[in-house]
Amino acid sequence: MNPIAIAMGDPAGIGPEVTAKAWQARRIHGLEPFFAVGDARSLEAVWDGPVVRIEDPAGAGDVFDDALPVLHLEDGGEITPGRPDVEGARCSLDSLELASGLARSGAAQALVTGPVSKTQLYGIGFTHPGQTEFVAERCGVARENAIMLLAGPTLKVVPMTTHLPLRDVASVLSIDMIVTRGLATAKGLTRNFGIESPRLAFAGFNPHAGENGALGREEIDIMIPAIAELRERGVDAIGPFAADAMFHARARANYDVAMCAYHDQALIPLKTLHFDEGVNMTLGLPFVRTSPDHGTAFAIAGQNRAEPGAMIAAIRMAAEAAHCRELAYA
Amino acid sequence: MNPIAIAMGDPAGIGPEVTAKAWQARRIHGLEPFFAVGDARSLEAVWDGPVVRIEDPAGAGDVFDDALPVLHLEDGGEITPGRPDVEGARCSLDSLELASGLARSGAAQALVTGPVSKTQLYGIGFTHPGQTEFVAERCGVARENAIMLLAGPTLKVVPMTTHLPLRDVASVLSIDMIVTRGLATAKGLTRNFGIESPRLAFAGFNPHAGENGALGREEIDIMIPAIAELRERGVDAIGPFAADAMFHARARANYDVAMCAYHDQALIPLKTLHFDEGVNMTLGLPFVRTSPDHGTAFAIAGQNRAEPGAMIAAIRMAAEAAHCRELAYA
Repeated sequence: MNPIAIAMGDPAGIGPEVTAKAWQARRIHGLEPFFAVGDARSLEAVWDGPVVRIEDPAGAGDVFDDALPVLHLEDGGEITPGRPDVEGARCSLDSLELASGLARSGAAQALVTGPVSKTQLYGIGFTHPGQTEFVAERCGVARENAIMLLAGPTLKVVPMTTHLPLRDVASVLSIDMIVTRGLATAKGLTRNFGIESPRLAFAGFNPHAGENGALGREEIDIMIPAIAELRERGVDAIGPFAADAMFHARARANYDVAMCAYHDQALIPLKTLHFDEGVNMTLGLPFVRTSPDHGTAFAIAGQNRAEPGAMIAAIRMAAEAAHCRELAYA
Repeated sequence: MNPIAIAMGDPAGIGPEVTAKAWQARRIHGLEPFFAVGDARSLEAVWDGPVVRIEDPAGAGDVFDDALPVLHLEDGGEITPGRPDVEGARCSLDSLELASGLARSGAAQALVTGPVSKTQLYGIGFTHPGQTEFVAERCGVARENAIMLLAGPTLKVVPMTTHLPLRDVASVLSIDMIVTRGLATAKGLTRNFGIESPRLAFAGFNPHAGENGALGREEIDIMIPAIAELRERGVDAIGPFAADAMFHARARANYDVAMCAYHDQALIPLKTLHFDEGVNMTLGLPFVRTSPDHGTAFAIAGQNRAEPGAMIAAIRMAAEAAHCRELAYA
């Protein structure tokens, strides 16, 4: 199988460091060959280990045992860990473009993306809300069909809405939207995790899932009909449940993914349980894409303090998903 | 010190069973003497252990080693575990009234309340949202000064709003409300837990705590000014923080209580971490009141399946808080 492409993200963030640390831990964690895409100097600035510049992904496999292969972009500006600038933003965008192209063509078996600075990217005219939407567009996938799944060792969640003010969430929820998200999530869990009939548990929007309308009507007016439609269409959808009773160990055993109405409803339980090992996977793309669920952490960049756990988990999950897809097509 | 009064809650729920099981575990957990208040027959219906009917709380201490003391109300209707009715609701209300009166007078060192059925209580004309508000009224404490604190072994949370539709929360948040809740919470943590200068960490209302207004303005318009006012008034208030990054172990070490904007923001992390041992404590009352954070669970009542962990934790926390108050007044 071809190697995995890691777009290292912002060169001044912790992306290069966690990529290097993941390579160091390749044997312990049984990681499949991968190569970094970005500015090789960002690795050299924070790490003394062996780096080999490659010209082509096909060369990564031969190198991987002994050194971290890097598909080096042309030298940009000077790189100082912890000091983001527009040249770094350009580098992170070029890396993303190149790495996602390689995943699209199949030259890379999957795409892992390191953390970028949205503030810096907006400064160079980036108009997408994030890397997910950028990659979806490059693949010709509509935004609403690119689903953000966050996964830790014992919990998977899908926030059906993400970065909008909480008071606007209710007006964005609709039967259509939930059905679309539910169908895409079920399909994505089958394709990427090999779960034949995924169980989707929906969290109620209101406290106690609205208590039959006494504490809000979104469950009655929107969620219950959407779940019924999903069931009619063959999806094992259940709920809506009181969100606060869905995330302890016994409850988690009853579903494959928790479908949440808003950002914090999904991210609070995930990060409470799995802060250092959360992986963000995009469902609905023609290839596998994962990302460690942390930011650029400029404040600690270059200090050898970054934890590679989430990056390692992202690489492993990407490889497993790619194998799963391959088996399905075999 | 005087014994603790346990109002057993609905006689057809699991309140009597968990009270009996807590008594059975009194030595293992080093529980201080307590007595049950309610219909002694509700205990006898689900438990074969020794029950002694007492006339006066003062008698509980002598009995406690060998039997569970019960301050028996007069016989009401027939009791069938799992089958709630209006007579049971009357019994639960009478127990609550009697037990809270004993706590108010000091005859009981603290009050622990078992789970009641609000549906049944509303059927007999109960007009309070819950037991907390009933007890507050009996003590002459205004509702907004009776603060619901939920506590597990590694996390304490205060939901600043509780049982209302999520779309209404934004309009209920105000600087005044947050300052009032913050002051009462700080005072309550000092009185009940002996924390001299409690650290209150506020969770942002919006995702990423609003990202400087890009994802909502409640932080800028309401929370930041409220936190500033609390600090001016001597409270160690910090935040608002991105809620999803507040509840993993390292983050929890930085505060004594998480002040949350709405029900699920507080209850999701608490129940994710401590589902079977959550305790609800009311701050701002003239005496200590705790409650196990679970419901009547009519579906499993009378089947010897109820877990007493939360009731045991509620009894322990009540005793510790009562000692803490006593020391402060000594």
